[in-house]
Amino acid sequence: MITGKNLIGFAKSGKGVNIFSSSIAEDGQLLDQSFYEASPAEIDAAVVQAQNAFAVYRFCAAVQKQSFLEAIAEAIAEAKEELVKMAMQETSLPKGRLEGEVQRTINQLKLFAALLAEGSWVKAIIDTAQPERVPLPKPDIRQMQVPFGPVAVFGASNFPFAFSVAGGDTVSAFAAGCPVVYKAHPGHPATSELVGNIIIDAAKKCGMPEGIFSLLQGKTNECSIALVTHPLIKAVGFTGSFTGGKAIFDAAAARKEPIPVYAEMGSVNPVFILPEIMQQQPAALAEKLAGSNLLSAGQFCTNPGIIVSVKSNDTTAFIAHFSDRVKNAVAEHMLTESICKNYASGIKKLQGFADVQVQSSGQENGEKSAIPYMFQISATGFLSNPDLWHEVFGPSSIHVIADNEEELYAVARQFTGQLTASIWGTENDLLTYATLGNELELKAGRIIFNNVPTGVEVTHAMVHGGPFPATTNSQTTSVGSNAIYRFTRAVCYQNSPPQLLPGALKNDNPLHIWRWVNGEFSNGPVA
Amino acid sequence: MITGKNLIGFAKSGKGVNIFSSSIAEDGQLLDQSFYEASPAEIDAAVVQAQNAFAVYRFCAAVQKQSFLEAIAEAIAEAKEELVKMAMQETSLPKGRLEGEVQRTINQLKLFAALLAEGSWVKAIIDTAQPERVPLPKPDIRQMQVPFGPVAVFGASNFPFAFSVAGGDTVSAFAAGCPVVYKAHPGHPATSELVGNIIIDAAKKCGMPEGIFSLLQGKTNECSIALVTHPLIKAVGFTGSFTGGKAIFDAAAARKEPIPVYAEMGSVNPVFILPEIMQQQPAALAEKLAGSNLLSAGQFCTNPGIIVSVKSNDTTAFIAHFSDRVKNAVAEHMLTESICKNYASGIKKLQGFADVQVQSSGQENGEKSAIPYMFQISATGFLSNPDLWHEVFGPSSIHVIADNEEELYAVARQFTGQLTASIWGTENDLLTYATLGNELELKAGRIIFNNVPTGVEVTHAMVHGGPFPATTNSQTTSVGSNAIYRFTRAVCYQNSPPQLLPGALKNDNPLHIWRWVNGEFSNGPVA
Repeated sequence: MITGKNLIGFAKSGKGVNIFSSSIAEDGQLLDQSFYEASPAEIDAAVVQAQNAFAVYRFCAAVQKQSFLEAIAEAIAEAKEELVKMAMQETSLPKGRLEGEVQRTINQLKLFAALLAEGSWVKAIIDTAQPERVPLPKPDIRQMQVPFGPVAVFGASNFPFAFSVAGGDTVSAFAAGCPVVYKAHPGHPATSELVGNIIIDAAKKCGMPEGIFSLLQGKTNECSIALVTHPLIKAVGFTGSFTGGKAIFDAAAARKEPIPVYAEMGSVNPVFILPEIMQQQPAALAEKLAGSNLLSAGQFCTNPGIIVSVKSNDTTAFIAHFSDRVKNAVAEHMLTESICKNYASGIKKLQGFADVQVQSSGQENGEKSAIPYMFQISATGFLSNPDLWHEVFGPSSIHVIADNEEELYAVARQFTGQLTASIWGTENDLLTYATLGNELELKAGRIIFNNVPTGVEVTHAMVHGGPFPATTNSQTTSVGSNAIYRFTRAVCYQNSPPQLLPGALKNDNPLHIWRWVNGEFSNGPVA
Repeated sequence: MITGKNLIGFAKSGKGVNIFSSSIAEDGQLLDQSFYEASPAEIDAAVVQAQNAFAVYRFCAAVQKQSFLEAIAEAIAEAKEELVKMAMQETSLPKGRLEGEVQRTINQLKLFAALLAEGSWVKAIIDTAQPERVPLPKPDIRQMQVPFGPVAVFGASNFPFAFSVAGGDTVSAFAAGCPVVYKAHPGHPATSELVGNIIIDAAKKCGMPEGIFSLLQGKTNECSIALVTHPLIKAVGFTGSFTGGKAIFDAAAARKEPIPVYAEMGSVNPVFILPEIMQQQPAALAEKLAGSNLLSAGQFCTNPGIIVSVKSNDTTAFIAHFSDRVKNAVAEHMLTESICKNYASGIKKLQGFADVQVQSSGQENGEKSAIPYMFQISATGFLSNPDLWHEVFGPSSIHVIADNEEELYAVARQFTGQLTASIWGTENDLLTYATLGNELELKAGRIIFNNVPTGVEVTHAMVHGGPFPATTNSQTTSVGSNAIYRFTRAVCYQNSPPQLLPGALKNDNPLHIWRWVNGEFSNGPVA
């Protein structure tokens, strides 16, 4: 069933000389399945086909694109059991977690299908002519969003579905009107092939042009960079490590024609616990935050890695509860060996700092597993050591203890860009520290009150993004409906004959969408 | 009155060792006025003051920002005569042209003041909670745009007002909530100082924090790069040459924290004339397009530099009329000596190609002046010579003659990114060539029908931008109200206590703005 080949347009192709393997367990036996890394010629073929598909796909009616997304969602729902089974074997993630992720992937597809059906996402702006204006007549100008062209998407190791083959990047690009050349993560190539087949089948069924989707397998940097630097690729979506994302960003910026890279590279997601709530419920807070921190071996980009509070007996109680939770936690298998190695070396580095105290660690569980860790340091120690400000991807946390309110604010100001920042407090706390959110909003894309950062709601208002180094473009989100605007640009038409205007910009508003007409929102015709 | 010093916050400062001059004529006599290039310490001081100002300015109510912009507009209107006189001396641009530009600058200020007063520009998106949702409750999430931080703006040589000190970049940054460190163009430093003083006075009058605006003088690349690479600068606006813009883009991408650069670098603005309209009015078309091409020595980023048509007797008549117009045109002074030199070398290069025919040239007029030129080449010749695809900034045009419709389309597909692309045609023409606009919309930010590209309407629907190399960010515009989004990013608040929400996101909608609430536009309270 799994071929290990690339999906180039509607064909399977395995002409490359680099072969790598994914260990897939079957009936308790490990099978080494070989995968063919895409050759330069295969990468070129995929991108050229995407460009050809774009010439057709960009004119597809919303309803056609909508059917395509819905067909993918339906087929994923049908294949759920098989997909989860394969992903469990490739990623070591637990069944419940993966089942939830598949459902989330389906929800994402439905969100964008609904966005297309509603139609106002194209942001039509109409300024009608004033032929009598002096000294010069005012022309008629109408603007809307149009798609970019072929998009390269790099899947994440930790979300084999929701941030992978049919995940948010691919789906938002499809919704925008862009074909996708998808580079599978080598941590789950077989799961990727299965989902890739589903997209290809849906494309055929819905009459989509060949090349709307291709899937490349590969393990080397050369393969990734060849895709990013292909002249016909117009934008890149990426979810993964800082090193990987930054390398792609740099390659894209150095192209003859630089292109935008939307790399989501994770963060430490600082959590601030304010004094009164700490006094009221230290044990419950420890339970919630440790649960969020240890979930799925801490392998979430929104994992709460740094927890900041003010010194007190209540904080001591919180630390003790959190510490117990860590001590009792058993090491879980990580996604890949290299992630596991990076985690171990990150922990070793933290252990090497004299003023970083190891509060507790969890229980060993064999080789590929990550032992949970919990560290503690004073705010002054934290502020003076930039090595502590970065993410250690995995089930570890640093607890920063401030002597007072002033130090807590100083820590808040110290962070670089984050996906999220959280504040826990009673109503009283939140009013006393009312400006803390203002400080954090300079640093993060999402400010969370009294909730854990893990779990990213797929909705219109979501911002899953943030200033560098959390992402390479702080103005966008990779989750939620606004993700579509990463792959579109505005075009305006001046004095266009009515017959040539796209439906979204015609006077009678045949699509019945919301438009900004002469400085007012309206969903009716142009008066 | 002119000091030649930098405006660092509210103080004048001239501590640099690099001094350059601007020749200002007074009563017929040239005066060499000295200007002090900003020193590294002065640049740092300006940026640090901008950062301090940001801490205050980002919380200013819309009405305060609005008053600030209106105060600048009012003071510019009052100083109009003095400003135009100085700019005439520094730029050689004619009085009428500069008076129009001052009015446009005032209009831009008023547009953004009105945008702030209306308030919906913050793009509030609200998704309310569903506490009963299974398997997990849905949190309350609310998103809006927030300002970036200190912005660096580089003024243009050819628009001493509308794209300079109080021009679109500065004003859209102010409207967004960002302080501006402005780098004056060395082609008109005295005009810049005058407008800079106006902004400082308005800031003081309106109680704005010191540092909201600083103006740096300078002529060297080092000065520009020092500003762009200052760690506290969060975005850059630029209007000018490809060389200048690309150097700034590269420096910004290579920073430890890369920042967005919005560089508008000009284009050849191709114009397509279709057969029937060419038959009906060759002389009138030649008159309009030559007028647009020769205006102000061709020194517009939207200057129509390449004109494409299909071979016919009518086209021959058009060429003859255009040629006459060029022949009779007298060379005009250009903005700066280096622009004039670049123009001369661009012309020389075109003259050196065997298959590029010089159709006509205009009349000489002394040293600093640009002689108009008109060239002609076949479509096949044009397609095979990439050296012809780039802008020659000044009063020249290349007329590309296609043998047939197919060749005309091939030329359209050949262009790289453009600010504008224009199509002239009768209704019949436009329907026959209906897909030409589709080709051009992949290349340009603005598609114009039966109108010249020079003249950029300042309005909501305008896109003054386009794919690289016209700009470094095809998703934005530097003219019109959407220019504000270059300097903002989205932040969302999850489960925020109502008291802590910004006005734009409160349930009762105290600002009475349009918001996207649970997937619908509404200007009322959250139900």
